[in-house]
Amino acid sequence: MPQTALVILDDPVIDSRFEGVGASRDYRFADPSAAQVNVLDFGVTRGDGIFETISVGAGRLQALEPHLARFARSAALLDLPAPDLDAWREAIAAAAGAIDPAPEAFVKTVMTRGVEGSGGDVTGWAYASPSADFAEVRREGIAVVTLDRGYRHDIAKTSPWLLAGAKTLSYAVNRAVLREAAKRGAEDAVFVSSDGYLLEGSTSNLILRVGDRLVTPSLDLGILAGTTQNDIFGFAAGIGLRGEYALLEQSALADADAAWLVSSVRHAAPIRSVDGVERPVDAELTAAINTFLIGRRV
Amino acid sequence: MPQTALVILDDPVIDSRFEGVGASRDYRFADPSAAQVNVLDFGVTRGDGIFETISVGAGRLQALEPHLARFARSAALLDLPAPDLDAWREAIAAAAGAIDPAPEAFVKTVMTRGVEGSGGDVTGWAYASPSADFAEVRREGIAVVTLDRGYRHDIAKTSPWLLAGAKTLSYAVNRAVLREAAKRGAEDAVFVSSDGYLLEGSTSNLILRVGDRLVTPSLDLGILAGTTQNDIFGFAAGIGLRGEYALLEQSALADADAAWLVSSVRHAAPIRSVDGVERPVDAELTAAINTFLIGRRV
Repeated sequence: MPQTALVILDDPVIDSRFEGVGASRDYRFADPSAAQVNVLDFGVTRGDGIFETISVGAGRLQALEPHLARFARSAALLDLPAPDLDAWREAIAAAAGAIDPAPEAFVKTVMTRGVEGSGGDVTGWAYASPSADFAEVRREGIAVVTLDRGYRHDIAKTSPWLLAGAKTLSYAVNRAVLREAAKRGAEDAVFVSSDGYLLEGSTSNLILRVGDRLVTPSLDLGILAGTTQNDIFGFAAGIGLRGEYALLEQSALADADAAWLVSSVRHAAPIRSVDGVERPVDAELTAAINTFLIGRRV
Repeated sequence: MPQTALVILDDPVIDSRFEGVGASRDYRFADPSAAQVNVLDFGVTRGDGIFETISVGAGRLQALEPHLARFARSAALLDLPAPDLDAWREAIAAAAGAIDPAPEAFVKTVMTRGVEGSGGDVTGWAYASPSADFAEVRREGIAVVTLDRGYRHDIAKTSPWLLAGAKTLSYAVNRAVLREAAKRGAEDAVFVSSDGYLLEGSTSNLILRVGDRLVTPSLDLGILAGTTQNDIFGFAAGIGLRGEYALLEQSALADADAAWLVSSVRHAAPIRSVDGVERPVDAELTAAINTFLIGRRV
C-alpha cells in the first residue's frame, strides 16, 4: 500500500436535485503527487474553502463526528453548500484505509468554493498520510509566544463576515505567527485578543490546569471549538478534573499550574515557556492525556 | 489563439545558487482548464502565497512595474523568497500575448510557498484572460456598505504577523464581505477599522473627491498601496486635482463630493450609495478617469 492516499469526491455537497431519488456518493482515488487542483479554484486564488484534520490512532478515526459537525458549521459560516456528510464519511474511510498502517496517521478534508466560472460546483478531497513523530514535543513541551490576533474578543458576535470560528483555507496569518514565533526562539504562538484575552494557538486550542480544574477560553471568542479539547474534557472528568470555559485574561497563562496547546495530530503539547519565561510542565497529566488521545477508539 | 492562457514558471524566485552563472528563466505554457496545482500546495491548504492582477488595456500591460514592486513587497511581508522579476516580466508578457485580443484583459500572477514537504520550492504562474464588461458599473456606479475590518488602524505597525498590507491568497474574508454586502442589497464593501477610520474596498482602494482634492486613506493603515489609485493621482494632477493621503473618519465617505472604489480590472467604480443612502456620482470625472485608465500606455 502507498504511504499517502488521495480521494476526490465527485459530489461533496447535498444536492437537492437528487435528494430522495438516490443521491450519488461517488469518489475516486487520485495520485497525490500529481496536480489535482485548477489554478482558478477559489481554494487557491482566494483561500475560499474549509478543512478538517482527523487523527487516526490505533487504526481508528478519532472524533470523526465532531470533526464532520465542525466541517458543516464552517461551511455554513462561509455560505458554502452543506457538505454531504455520508459522502465524506465514505471518502475519509477510503483514504484512511488505503495507506500503510502507521502508529499515528491523519486524514485531511478540504472543500473549496470550486473553480471560478464553473457554475458553483464545489471541490472536495480527503488526503491521508502518516503523522510526523511528536514524541519529543509531547514529552519536552513547547516554547510559545503570545501574539496579538488583532481582533477584539467579541468579534464573532459583532462582525460575522470576519469568519472567526470557521476553519478556513485562509491561514496565511496562522502560518505567519509560526515564523514570528521562530524569530523569537519559540515553536508556537498563543493568540491574544486586541483587548487582552487569551484565545487559541495557531492551529490548536489552549487548555490551562488551575488546581483541579481544566480551563479553556470560551467558544464565543471567535475561536475554533476544539474536538481534541472536548475529548480531553471528557477524559479529565473521569480522573476528577472539572472542565470549564471562561474569559481568561492574558496573565492566566503564566499563572496556571500547567498549560497545553491541544490539536488533532500533535495532541497535547505541554507549554514549557511563555514569552521566554519558563513555566511548569505537568509531565504525568500530559502523558495520561496523550495516551488517552493516541489510543482512543471511537 | 485561445481565450485564456496559463504560463507556469520553473524558477519564480531569485536563486542565489545560480546568480551570476546564467540564471534559468524558463517558463512553459500549460492548459488552464486542466489541474495544475498539488493538493499539498500551501497556496491551497493555507492560502499561503501572494498575487497581483495586472490590467491589459489597449494591448499594453498597465502599471506593470508598480505591480511587480508590490508583488515583491508582499513576498517580503510573508518571508517568501524574492520573486525573480525578470522571470515574471517574461512570463506575464508571454501569457498576455497568447490570448485573443480583447478590449480589456488581465494577467493574474500567483506565487505560493510551494508543495508541503518538497523542500521549499515555491509555485508560480501567470494566467491571462479577457476581463468582464464593467461598462455599466463604471457608468451607473455601485452601492456599498461599510463593514468593520476588525483591526485597529495601526495594526500594520503593532502586529506585522497579521500581514496587513500584503496581497495574500488568504482572501476568504474579502469574499465574505461581498456576500454580506449582497445580503444588504449592495455590490461591494468598504472596510472600516475597529476604531472608526476608512480603509479600503474588498479588492480595491477608496478615493474621495473633496473640492479640488482627491483623498485616499494613508498607506500606513494596513491597506494595500493601490497601483490604480496611484495612477489616478498622477492623472488628476494634470487636470488640477491635488492627491492627498489622510487618516479619514468614517463620516468622510458620506460627506465627500464624490467617491470611487478603484482597482486594476474594474478601474474606477463610482459609489452611488453608502449603507443604503444615495450619494452624488461625478459622472464627468469618472468617465475621464476610466478613459485614462483603459487607454493608458505604459
